[in-house]
Amino acid sequence: MFSKILIANRGEIALRILRACRELGIKTVAVHSTADEDAMHVRLADEAVCIGPPASRDSYLNVAAILSAATITGAEAIHPGYGFLSENADFAETVEAHGLTFIGPTAEHIRMMGDKITAKTTMQMLGVPLVPGSDGELTSLEEAREVADKVGYPVLIKAAAGGGGRGMKVAQTADDLEDAWKMARAEARAAFGNDAVYLEKYMDRPRHIELQILGDNYGNVVHFGERDCSLQRRHQKLLEEAGSPALTPEQRDAIGQTATQALSKMGYRNAGTLEFLYQDGQFCFIEMNTRLQVEHPVTEMVCDVDLVREQIRLAAGEQLGYTQKDISFSGHAIECRINAEDPDSFTPCPGTVAVYHPPGGLGVRVDSALYTGYRVPPFYDSMIAKLIVHAPTREQAIARMQRALDEFVVEGIKTVIPLHRRILEDPEFQKGDYTIHWLEQFTAKPH
Amino acid sequence: MFSKILIANRGEIALRILRACRELGIKTVAVHSTADEDAMHVRLADEAVCIGPPASRDSYLNVAAILSAATITGAEAIHPGYGFLSENADFAETVEAHGLTFIGPTAEHIRMMGDKITAKTTMQMLGVPLVPGSDGELTSLEEAREVADKVGYPVLIKAAAGGGGRGMKVAQTADDLEDAWKMARAEARAAFGNDAVYLEKYMDRPRHIELQILGDNYGNVVHFGERDCSLQRRHQKLLEEAGSPALTPEQRDAIGQTATQALSKMGYRNAGTLEFLYQDGQFCFIEMNTRLQVEHPVTEMVCDVDLVREQIRLAAGEQLGYTQKDISFSGHAIECRINAEDPDSFTPCPGTVAVYHPPGGLGVRVDSALYTGYRVPPFYDSMIAKLIVHAPTREQAIARMQRALDEFVVEGIKTVIPLHRRILEDPEFQKGDYTIHWLEQFTAKPH
Repeated sequence: MFSKILIANRGEIALRILRACRELGIKTVAVHSTADEDAMHVRLADEAVCIGPPASRDSYLNVAAILSAATITGAEAIHPGYGFLSENADFAETVEAHGLTFIGPTAEHIRMMGDKITAKTTMQMLGVPLVPGSDGELTSLEEAREVADKVGYPVLIKAAAGGGGRGMKVAQTADDLEDAWKMARAEARAAFGNDAVYLEKYMDRPRHIELQILGDNYGNVVHFGERDCSLQRRHQKLLEEAGSPALTPEQRDAIGQTATQALSKMGYRNAGTLEFLYQDGQFCFIEMNTRLQVEHPVTEMVCDVDLVREQIRLAAGEQLGYTQKDISFSGHAIECRINAEDPDSFTPCPGTVAVYHPPGGLGVRVDSALYTGYRVPPFYDSMIAKLIVHAPTREQAIARMQRALDEFVVEGIKTVIPLHRRILEDPEFQKGDYTIHWLEQFTAKPH
Repeated sequence: MFSKILIANRGEIALRILRACRELGIKTVAVHSTADEDAMHVRLADEAVCIGPPASRDSYLNVAAILSAATITGAEAIHPGYGFLSENADFAETVEAHGLTFIGPTAEHIRMMGDKITAKTTMQMLGVPLVPGSDGELTSLEEAREVADKVGYPVLIKAAAGGGGRGMKVAQTADDLEDAWKMARAEARAAFGNDAVYLEKYMDRPRHIELQILGDNYGNVVHFGERDCSLQRRHQKLLEEAGSPALTPEQRDAIGQTATQALSKMGYRNAGTLEFLYQDGQFCFIEMNTRLQVEHPVTEMVCDVDLVREQIRLAAGEQLGYTQKDISFSGHAIECRINAEDPDSFTPCPGTVAVYHPPGGLGVRVDSALYTGYRVPPFYDSMIAKLIVHAPTREQAIARMQRALDEFVVEGIKTVIPLHRRILEDPEFQKGDYTIHWLEQFTAKPH
């Protein structure tokens, strides 16, 4: 096991990693920009090294400064957290070239999954389903009909050379197909000088469902079930749940088996997440994140697992030590991301936290690097806390989250806590009846 | 289910009950003394009623004021918490006489268990083991020998009329018995004018182990395993664990079965705790607490149960709804009671909390009514927070507690956090090798 780890991140995730290290008896090295001198992760780490000025590119993305901090302090491994350098294959490679351990997958796998086309073709080869449709270009309307009948309506006719929605037409039923075919080809010809089109199943009300995976260095891969991350605004997740209100245990098992078999064949190691669009029982792989996710705590709560501890153990070369059948799912967990933003305009609101008082009690977890008097700097992501609850049922988890949000005091800066309160009391949310479009529509409504 | 509950308590336990009510959709009425106007339970309750001046007898023990607060606010039930009126049978009776529900057992059972002699004879009749010994007075040395051989050495010869340790002698082996017999009788004669003596097994290194029970109004009783509360100073518990490092699952099952059968025969309802001295596989009932215990959270963590929610449900007449086989035990939990006391002299240290920052993250629970700027009043119990951790193993729970204690900031008043840090790093504690005498000896040692 490592004796010292450098944490190449800031904020709550730096603290999260620090806590796991401390519980494993591993010394920690914090790195920080000049804007983060008073940050909690700096205060609590065994050692701290300033790696540059506030701008991320000069500090948290400054590979040379981070590697030199690791060398100076004698750290043996680097945990990249999420964001910043966590999915930078060159960084992972450089870390390993310096004789340090990168706590994550191989640079090769990061690179492979970083290229979204390669990721999809690789996953398809390994048996993971993509959005169903034609195998490339369609040669005739008749072929389009055949494929559409196979994948089911509604379908999308899309320009092969397309982008930005041009040359893209929906056929809701078989009656619409000929028109969609003609119009898409005409638009494609006009826009791109190329009327080649292909066909895809049109998911009109998909959910974003993702699967947490862990693998060791010896080919053992397990999954820890799904998270439903459909509640997004401008592709930013705001509230996540485990499990998904839309899935049955059988569906979870089936996609879990498909995913773990694929990643085992790949020889994937450490933590990873497969993201899917999901609708009507159908999973369509969209991308893979080769790192810890912000929303990993909801999985930890329902599976009773410490994912960061596992990442560290696995990176140190330990075996997984358990198999899929040892992993069980208990109750329901919800995470609310607390951002320092105006809850109506979503404008970031950095500033000084006059009072910070997190909620407590049974089933409540707070992951945050805030404290009373802390100045939220304007340079980084606006997420300042994660409030996570766990309860035997989804209904109880919602009630628990509501009471925890009511107790949460963050004064001096605006946060999205009022928005979370509104979401939690919405009947559609309470029924679990939402898609990836729900939150955009919800926040656009007057209230 | 109730629509409004009055919480006849203060501090963290008032908040604990309030949280459970809120999650059940039940309105809450807080009561408070004039010293507690700014208390958290008052701030968070739906309604609050001042019931008198600071002294407990004039406020939190003021039955008339509490009942009138309940009547005025239209509360349907009263939760007494622990301490104060929680084990006052007259109060329970008066509450019910006013047409309100007392959230706890019947007045009859509270009274029965409040009388420690009746409690023991009742439990013995119901098959719960007491400290083994003679059936009352011994008539001869030969009889003493027979009983001592049966219960095993060491044994205690005790004056029937005794008290305060007079007329009490230990026989470590059979060789000592005659001397002990003679000396105890001589001392008893001199001190009490009565040389009647009896014999008990002498437990020289007992642990305090207690069993959490829940019963419904229909004779269904289950247990939620044990808590080890051996770490006490002047009979005040300081740190509790679930499960006990000394018990096997088989021992837990056996004593659990004995206890639930006894309480089922009694028709016991709602929450209760059987306290035992335990040594070398032997449980000896000492008393029963007919209320929620301070240390109930460690049980909640390992059994994934909300005991206060259950108390409320059961008091409302709901059935238990599960049986013993549905209750399982997962991982290990530790609670540290954080008292506002000097960690060396144990002098209470009320005052203003300049900074309050609780720890967070995975497996950490804080039950506290503190906040930054709160003035801890000098009138009540010095316990200001409970820090509870849960982890897959005892070793991991200890590491988690250590890191959580390191993160816990309470400035402006002294607390026992430094003492907990010392306990947690002690090798004997880490081995789980302690008795009810351990903490007294530990705190007496220079450090």
